[in-house]
Amino acid sequence: MKIGFIGLGQMGSGMAMRLLTAGHTLTVFNRSPEKMQPLVSRGARVAQSPRDFYDAEAVFSMLADDAAVQHIVFADDGLLRHLAVGAIHISCSTISVALSARLAAAHTDAGQHYVSCPVFGRPDAAAVGKLFLVAAGLPQIVDRLRPVFEVVGQRTFVVAEQAEKANIIKLSGNFLIAAVIESLGEAMALVEKGGIDRHAYLEVLTSSLFNVPLYKNYGALIADRHFTPAGFASSLGQKDIRLTLTVAESLDVPLPFASILRDRFIALAAQGGEMQDWSAVATLAAQDAGLMPKP
Amino acid sequence: MKIGFIGLGQMGSGMAMRLLTAGHTLTVFNRSPEKMQPLVSRGARVAQSPRDFYDAEAVFSMLADDAAVQHIVFADDGLLRHLAVGAIHISCSTISVALSARLAAAHTDAGQHYVSCPVFGRPDAAAVGKLFLVAAGLPQIVDRLRPVFEVVGQRTFVVAEQAEKANIIKLSGNFLIAAVIESLGEAMALVEKGGIDRHAYLEVLTSSLFNVPLYKNYGALIADRHFTPAGFASSLGQKDIRLTLTVAESLDVPLPFASILRDRFIALAAQGGEMQDWSAVATLAAQDAGLMPKP
Amino acid sequence: MKIGFIGLGQMGSGMAMRLLTAGHTLTVFNRSPEKMQPLVSRGARVAQSPRDFYDAEAVFSMLADDAAVQHIVFADDGLLRHLAVGAIHISCSTISVALSARLAAAHTDAGQHYVSCPVFGRPDAAAVGKLFLVAAGLPQIVDRLRPVFEVVGQRTFVVAEQAEKANIIKLSGNFLIAAVIESLGEAMALVEKGGIDRHAYLEVLTSSLFNVPLYKNYGALIADRHFTPAGFASSLGQKDIRLTLTVAESLDVPLPFASILRDRFIALAAQGGEMQDWSAVATLAAQDAGLMPKP
Amino acid sequence: MKIGFIGLGQMGSGMAMRLLTAGHTLTVFNRSPEKMQPLVSRGARVAQSPRDFYDAEAVFSMLADDAAVQHIVFADDGLLRHLAVGAIHISCSTISVALSARLAAAHTDAGQHYVSCPVFGRPDAAAVGKLFLVAAGLPQIVDRLRPVFEVVGQRTFVVAEQAEKANIIKLSGNFLIAAVIESLGEAMALVEKGGIDRHAYLEVLTSSLFNVPLYKNYGALIADRHFTPAGFASSLGQKDIRLTLTVAESLDVPLPFASILRDRFIALAAQGGEMQDWSAVATLAAQDAGLMPKP
Repeated sequence: MKIGFIGLGQMGSGMAMRLLTAGHTLTVFNRSPEKMQPLVSRGARVAQSPRDFYDAEAVFSMLADDAAVQHIVFADDGLLRHLAVGAIHISCSTISVALSARLAAAHTDAGQHYVSCPVFGRPDAAAVGKLFLVAAGLPQIVDRLRPVFEVVGQRTFVVAEQAEKANIIKLSGNFLIAAVIESLGEAMALVEKGGIDRHAYLEVLTSSLFNVPLYKNYGALIADRHFTPAGFASSLGQKDIRLTLTVAESLDVPLPFASILRDRFIALAAQGGEMQDWSAVATLAAQDAGLMPKP
Repeated sequence: MKIGFIGLGQMGSGMAMRLLTAGHTLTVFNRSPEKMQPLVSRGARVAQSPRDFYDAEAVFSMLADDAAVQHIVFADDGLLRHLAVGAIHISCSTISVALSARLAAAHTDAGQHYVSCPVFGRPDAAAVGKLFLVAAGLPQIVDRLRPVFEVVGQRTFVVAEQAEKANIIKLSGNFLIAAVIESLGEAMALVEKGGIDRHAYLEVLTSSLFNVPLYKNYGALIADRHFTPAGFASSLGQKDIRLTLTVAESLDVPLPFASILRDRFIALAAQGGEMQDWSAVATLAAQDAGLMPKP
Repeated sequence: MKIGFIGLGQMGSGMAMRLLTAGHTLTVFNRSPEKMQPLVSRGARVAQSPRDFYDAEAVFSMLADDAAVQHIVFADDGLLRHLAVGAIHISCSTISVALSARLAAAHTDAGQHYVSCPVFGRPDAAAVGKLFLVAAGLPQIVDRLRPVFEVVGQRTFVVAEQAEKANIIKLSGNFLIAAVIESLGEAMALVEKGGIDRHAYLEVLTSSLFNVPLYKNYGALIADRHFTPAGFASSLGQKDIRLTLTVAESLDVPLPFASILRDRFIALAAQGGEMQDWSAVATLAAQDAGLMPKP
Repeated sequence: MKIGFIGLGQMGSGMAMRLLTAGHTLTVFNRSPEKMQPLVSRGARVAQSPRDFYDAEAVFSMLADDAAVQHIVFADDGLLRHLAVGAIHISCSTISVALSARLAAAHTDAGQHYVSCPVFGRPDAAAVGKLFLVAAGLPQIVDRLRPVFEVVGQRTFVVAEQAEKANIIKLSGNFLIAAVIESLGEAMALVEKGGIDRHAYLEVLTSSLFNVPLYKNYGALIADRHFTPAGFASSLGQKDIRLTLTVAESLDVPLPFASILRDRFIALAAQGGEMQDWSAVATLAAQDAGLMPKP
């Protein structure tokens, strides 16, 4: 398949390499050109702008936020003008529900297709094709993409026709992960002040009820207090909680845990922690308990 | 081994039956005598009071709260007066950290042993010996109990010599479970208002990052809105959050998530929900979002 | 002075009538024309659009939200194109800090002046010129407006040259009022469940430490449970808390009380309470305590 | 009137001096004897223990917490055994609702009278007889005390026959004050990060809607960041929020603002701030916003 890929951050690079390795014809575009090098050296073509995706059957985008996605789609040299009729934009970025709905409408108006396909998993999972994909779009279009999805992810959940529903699920999932981080931070602050070793405690948890990589991996980061380099930056986590709260407010849904998470991410940012892994919010409970020096 | 067992609720009955089936000589005591019947019919002896445990090598207690444990230990006919020198009180109830420390001191003063051994798992796990045990006490005493623990649980974590540390871990663990319940309640309220089926959503979660019985089981209860009969009553969950906050305050540890959980359990009690399963606190997010009629 | 006035809601009507009565030449504009009638019958001229303010020395705007203000300023027939060079736009609406900064820059670029002047006080205070004005802008421009401000308010606080600082103060002030409402709601729920009459309780509070109209007036609304018609609609209160949280996030300031207020306003909206007075958020504490039937 | 006074802290000393100056026969008791000196030098007698109040018509107690009051009443040499039949114990301490109910019952059983009479006001108000008294007890007994109350306070609110209702009101009032402190702390953190001077901001607030000593005095402490010596220690504020939450839980009343205050007081204690004025909790919002170095 002739595939385009926009956005070669930690996640995008892994996904694009999987597609290339699987034998797809790949054209890549990234703002910082040096990120394209590893893919080019394996046979990918370089696009100068989304204009160059004019003959792609499908273009993935995996970008940091709404602004980046808006630019790549709506700019003069963007996908909306230059993607072929019948081609598919597969949007994997974690973006707002409102933007996803707007993208779906705009691509449809332009005779193109839009599939919302946010993913769960960190960069190491992307590199080995073990992501979980949450896809929403027209069934026949999503079906056409299944072989591609199988290269990128270990499983694809097709959740709805309306694209933005995949984004609600993605945002709510990131909220759930952030809630795991905060709850572990609080629990570890408590047991540590009670004289119990954080790692021994984590061993109890993850050998019993919480025997799942999510708790093991984040628990280890928190117990180790090891937050750089970031697998997923705190500034991105903050953005996702903001987007969660925004869609929740538009749907009249109060989310008390998310409100606390919002305050935690802001407090971490006020300490200059935006570039730490988002699990660093767990240190705030320890700080408030007097366990760690505060900046 | 000559074993006594006090407290034949849903959890205790399952544990006691396991001990009996494994061949131990079992004497049981329960406030409501009818609960003893199934065990007696399988060969257990009936105690009229803790006095009758005078010749036991070890006595388990699995009771609802501090008051019940205090009575069984400190009353005139209680364990402290009537347990033999050198015998062991294995306290499995989820009690306050302060009471556990006090029990350890009192039994030691009386020449007896005290092992704090709270458990993780619901009644169905107790019935098949699949509990997780968190044990704290003198190493040589805990070692002596290993064969017994293996009958009751699938794994025993020996975490400390000081008995009360096991209770901190137990309480913090229940806090973590309650945080899972609340976060699922909020997430499901959000996606449902966004037009997504609760069960389909849960399937995505538990087939990907949250692929663990804890999320599956509680998620199903919440998606089904099925809270009776209670596997673990909301009033007990409320008690555990209260005990968590109490020990946290004594250690100067703020716990914002636990504070929200406290308010949730109180709100559920104000609706008359004390006897529902504690996962019913997840309905409050749905109520606040206007999804459910409120009582 | 030749004055224009845009926005004749409950607040704007009172302010405009004060200006007219004080002898100023007044031209008014309102989306719904019938609101202009009482002023016209007292001598005000009617504008068909902001174009008709071409000869005004100063134009007040008192509108519901950012969108309304943006339209009145940036539309083709808006103030930016049609206000005379050297004329002043006095923006009294409670708008976002970002929009206020943008308006200041745009008017300055157009050779006009912008004074940010949000007000504290409810419609009855507006009607009798007892508002408190918080003004920010160039000192010489603000000074020129003092005679006008004296007609509208009982006191004007000139707080900064940068227009948006007045908006931060206004938003933070509305946050403080909302916090009073919530705290009274919680306290009254508590004492009522303790068997104490709400009104008797309020009398104790407002005759002692809380002897100030703010507590008396909101306390009476809450004790009476009398929320219609709204002096200030809940939907506007929700908007103000949203704007407060937005500027706070941009400045890296966590606001836990504001987060709770956000959830309260959302919950009230989910019950259909957007058009009630914003003090109706106090009923949520009573609902959660089981004191009131929930919708 | 022959009056006894137990507890000569900052509050009690001022109250006792007022009673002495008004011509009452006063006997005083305090754990640390040096606090009695100023009163003795003005004519008060010294009690060695509550035994010495055997001939008092009324005995005030103004102590730090439940434990202190319990001791003074229930100890062998306590009021319950040694107060005359028909004499009155006037309990001014901020104690739990449960203890107040228990004291009422115990004194009644002993043929004595109990009037619950917590006060609002800080030490400077106590020194000049400007406290607000909240009294609950049998009407004829409360009436008998009116001349005494007039010496101590500027106004007495007689709220109920059941003693503990006065304590609910007192606790809820302290909760309201703490909510004012927290809300001012958050608002000041916000405006300060927005480039606005804290004192100038406070001037706007307290010259307009918040024109009342409560906001002026606490606002000044917070704007000055001046928390020592404490007018009311943070550890006492923490205790009062704890007692508020305890009675609220027993009445099934969730109090989200109080839950946040609880966490704030704990965080301040974790920094070693227990002996600062309780308004120091307002610094936590500034810390979280990165405005202050954290300990």
